[in-house]
Amino acid sequence: MPAPDTATLLIHCPDRPGLVHDVTGFIFSHRGNIIDLQQHIDPAQDTFFMRLEWSLENFTLEQEEIEARLQPLARRHEMQMRLHFASRRKRVALFVTKENHCIYDLLARHEAGDLPVDIPLIIANHETLRPAAERFGIPFHHFPITKENKQAQEAAQIDLLKKERVDTVVLARYMQIISPAMIEAFPHQILNIHHSFLPAFVGAKPYHQAHARGVKIIGATSHYVTADLDEGPIIHQDVMRVSHEDSVQDLVRLGRDLEKTVLAKALWWHVRDQVLVYQNKTVVFE
Amino acid sequence: MPAPDTATLLIHCPDRPGLVHDVTGFIFSHRGNIIDLQQHIDPAQDTFFMRLEWSLENFTLEQEEIEARLQPLARRHEMQMRLHFASRRKRVALFVTKENHCIYDLLARHEAGDLPVDIPLIIANHETLRPAAERFGIPFHHFPITKENKQAQEAAQIDLLKKERVDTVVLARYMQIISPAMIEAFPHQILNIHHSFLPAFVGAKPYHQAHARGVKIIGATSHYVTADLDEGPIIHQDVMRVSHEDSVQDLVRLGRDLEKTVLAKALWWHVRDQVLVYQNKTVVFE
Amino acid sequence: MPAPDTATLLIHCPDRPGLVHDVTGFIFSHRGNIIDLQQHIDPAQDTFFMRLEWSLENFTLEQEEIEARLQPLARRHEMQMRLHFASRRKRVALFVTKENHCIYDLLARHEAGDLPVDIPLIIANHETLRPAAERFGIPFHHFPITKENKQAQEAAQIDLLKKERVDTVVLARYMQIISPAMIEAFPHQILNIHHSFLPAFVGAKPYHQAHARGVKIIGATSHYVTADLDEGPIIHQDVMRVSHEDSVQDLVRLGRDLEKTVLAKALWWHVRDQVLVYQNKTVVFE
Amino acid sequence: MPAPDTATLLIHCPDRPGLVHDVTGFIFSHRGNIIDLQQHIDPAQDTFFMRLEWSLENFTLEQEEIEARLQPLARRHEMQMRLHFASRRKRVALFVTKENHCIYDLLARHEAGDLPVDIPLIIANHETLRPAAERFGIPFHHFPITKENKQAQEAAQIDLLKKERVDTVVLARYMQIISPAMIEAFPHQILNIHHSFLPAFVGAKPYHQAHARGVKIIGATSHYVTADLDEGPIIHQDVMRVSHEDSVQDLVRLGRDLEKTVLAKALWWHVRDQVLVYQNKTVVFE
Repeated sequence: MPAPDTATLLIHCPDRPGLVHDVTGFIFSHRGNIIDLQQHIDPAQDTFFMRLEWSLENFTLEQEEIEARLQPLARRHEMQMRLHFASRRKRVALFVTKENHCIYDLLARHEAGDLPVDIPLIIANHETLRPAAERFGIPFHHFPITKENKQAQEAAQIDLLKKERVDTVVLARYMQIISPAMIEAFPHQILNIHHSFLPAFVGAKPYHQAHARGVKIIGATSHYVTADLDEGPIIHQDVMRVSHEDSVQDLVRLGRDLEKTVLAKALWWHVRDQVLVYQNKTVVFE
Repeated sequence: MPAPDTATLLIHCPDRPGLVHDVTGFIFSHRGNIIDLQQHIDPAQDTFFMRLEWSLENFTLEQEEIEARLQPLARRHEMQMRLHFASRRKRVALFVTKENHCIYDLLARHEAGDLPVDIPLIIANHETLRPAAERFGIPFHHFPITKENKQAQEAAQIDLLKKERVDTVVLARYMQIISPAMIEAFPHQILNIHHSFLPAFVGAKPYHQAHARGVKIIGATSHYVTADLDEGPIIHQDVMRVSHEDSVQDLVRLGRDLEKTVLAKALWWHVRDQVLVYQNKTVVFE
Repeated sequence: MPAPDTATLLIHCPDRPGLVHDVTGFIFSHRGNIIDLQQHIDPAQDTFFMRLEWSLENFTLEQEEIEARLQPLARRHEMQMRLHFASRRKRVALFVTKENHCIYDLLARHEAGDLPVDIPLIIANHETLRPAAERFGIPFHHFPITKENKQAQEAAQIDLLKKERVDTVVLARYMQIISPAMIEAFPHQILNIHHSFLPAFVGAKPYHQAHARGVKIIGATSHYVTADLDEGPIIHQDVMRVSHEDSVQDLVRLGRDLEKTVLAKALWWHVRDQVLVYQNKTVVFE
Repeated sequence: MPAPDTATLLIHCPDRPGLVHDVTGFIFSHRGNIIDLQQHIDPAQDTFFMRLEWSLENFTLEQEEIEARLQPLARRHEMQMRLHFASRRKRVALFVTKENHCIYDLLARHEAGDLPVDIPLIIANHETLRPAAERFGIPFHHFPITKENKQAQEAAQIDLLKKERVDTVVLARYMQIISPAMIEAFPHQILNIHHSFLPAFVGAKPYHQAHARGVKIIGATSHYVTADLDEGPIIHQDVMRVSHEDSVQDLVRLGRDLEKTVLAKALWWHVRDQVLVYQNKTVVFE
């Protein structure tokens, strides 16, 4: 199934009358047909958000010229704008450590055609999952991390990611803190899966914390990585019921089902350009 | 809190380029500011759906003339259109039998200001809930129903509803089948709560059926009433987990929590004009 | 429906072989028939927990002598023990402020026969809900609280509760911090409903905190009140999905449905003696 | 991690006083320590159910003699009894067709040590998933099925399963109806995953049926296979929310996450001997 030939525009700007009319006028005047339009107004911030996807089938502009032609409109309304094309599949790097559930889940979706991305490489700080990567024919790069080599290894990772033209980094249970250089190189393009319902139980061993507190529900949170650990914009969360019967080990085991599905869903929205970040929160146009 | 002065337009029509641009042009040209716009395209039916809510604060047309002024647009695009004003609160009649959970839930929401409607009357086929109605100061009308008097009683009910200018009828666990005359008098304006996850367990005693089948989840479904019993367009559904420990009586008791919240949510969407019916299904603009 | 004539025993003690055999031997030897038996072992603490409910129909001991006759068994196994009788309905006091959703929900359940307790009184720090109490015929006591009179008013409340032989206090959205004297008077018998998924968003205005953090799920938590604010043993929690579309006011409104059902469920388990507190956590025998 | 050395007893029989006492007496008298005991009484059927797991560490009977030694007890109480040992891992055969999500999910769990079984073989009616099986080193047997050869092929499958000493058959999206010979060979040991909330949408293409009906929730059901298609005892069910935005293809894609987790959970309970079948329903001792 070839990717449908569509363009997606993500916008936010100060709210004022006529915004939808103006943007749809641009599309209509070049014979685009809107497939999906969602807008949201934050009255507290007086800010307008919109996601607009349209068919390029009869569109009279070339892909290359669309952005430039949108500029007058953007300037007029002080718009922040992102433009994406479905035909340009995102290139996604998976970062892993030892746990296999997220990586297998993503690779199985990819093989089934349910994840419209390219996965040019897997990066790991342990050798454990090399066989998993090789089974699916994805190049596996081992970057062992120590306190001493961490900075150099991350620099080498960034070089490799750039060389492979990676757009999006997915921390699929990668047990290392990402340093600022990497975050700056991929702003709001690094997705993490945290194994708790954030902001409850930040930091290490959240299932141990949850067990100690005696909660009746555990959760998982996928968020963009920012400089503040576990404080980035939340993309998706889900939970499940647990009980006094469940040991910490049970929580760890049960939680894996949450982690893999929450991460996969967040990535789905991300690669389809359904997520807009604003003031450390996300607008997810489902 | 006075109802905000807004207008809401619900539209469906054949899909074609320029629809959003055209409708938003109408709003913009009369100085309306869009508060919420949601559209949906059903590619299988090639049909366009939209809900548009805009502020009337600076709008240059009077409420009375908006509909007429929209006609050329509607004709041009073969649009089915409904126009509502937030300031004209819907008038809702509650139909009940003996069970109190839905009626108390709705009356408590109403008293708390969480249900923006008028409730001019409660109709019942038993006297049981008269004290409940009187406690909240709502006129209670008892229409005992027998096989012989059913047609006449329903005719009298319709007269009463018309006299009270009722828009919406809510069957809040009303244990009588509604006849065609009533359904025709209130097309897609009668909401029912069925105590199962439809289409599983239609008809009477769904909890008994669920228990006999040994399901691990029970549900409730709110739908518009149509001529086919339990077959009307579904507005909202929710479920809860049960187990072999739960007797039929437990399911009945537990299910009440589903019934009241599912019905209240469906009614919330209905009275805010967020629901559009199309080919026996609903588009719910959440 | 009269309460079934059953006894319930809640036990915890160091784990060792033969505990179930020993306790069931006591029941069997006096011709009791077990209706429900649940046990739980915490291997980390090497502790045994059990809830045992049996029919008193043919039981050969009088209610009054059971506890004494269990003592040798309890001593032998160093058991902590609580004994309850279904026929002795708990007497529950509701504490409220201004919000009506929890109180109406509990009173409607009570009227429907779904809450097997007596509710001898409602205590409030505002007059707002007096009509609600009076509609259901429950005595309403207004104790206005100021910084100056708080200690005296709470002492008067305790006197009233003792006079009315209250077992259980339910803070049904009571917007006052309970002081240590009250907590000591009703150890693990005061239930609170906190309007967040604890331990996220402790303290005041949790929906504001949730909105600011941009969470995708909100929750409610019912717990026993202890000296540490919002840190008591959690009995029940539930959550619902929200989105960027929801304002703080939407979260407040939506959250009410969680609050009332979570509190009602926790109270249901409490009054049926299904909850055992241990090391600031609960064992809930569902 | 070696399987803990425990025995599990599943019992049902007519309810009468002293059952728990009698069975625990047997365990205690041979120095077994109970790890988990759950019982359930169905008052409508006057039937007693119990699952009892105990440590064999100091148990004074050999595994081989336990069953015989339990016989007098079983006869006395007319018990149906099943005895399992954690150290004897179940041997599970996976049946697949073309869809990869359930098989990858189960194989990844198995590799992670989260599924305590042996998987000696995969049987398929298409070649599609041979590479998936081979990647995980599981022998893959292709049995193409036509109307003409179906009976012979199933007979060959049964021979193979017997030769491989298979206990449990998992239909992991196997798109063939199982015939009576297979069902008789593995009574209540064949698990299926049906892609709907049964009993809604039995038979083929349930997502198409769900879409046509306009439901707001889709589900998946894992059940034991019996002679009546989609009518076997339900082990586990789960659901997710969908909307008018979701096409049939979206439902198919989204539903896969339900299917794989529901099947995995049902299998988890099955292989740990937590499921007891009774009158076409299951008692699941969670």
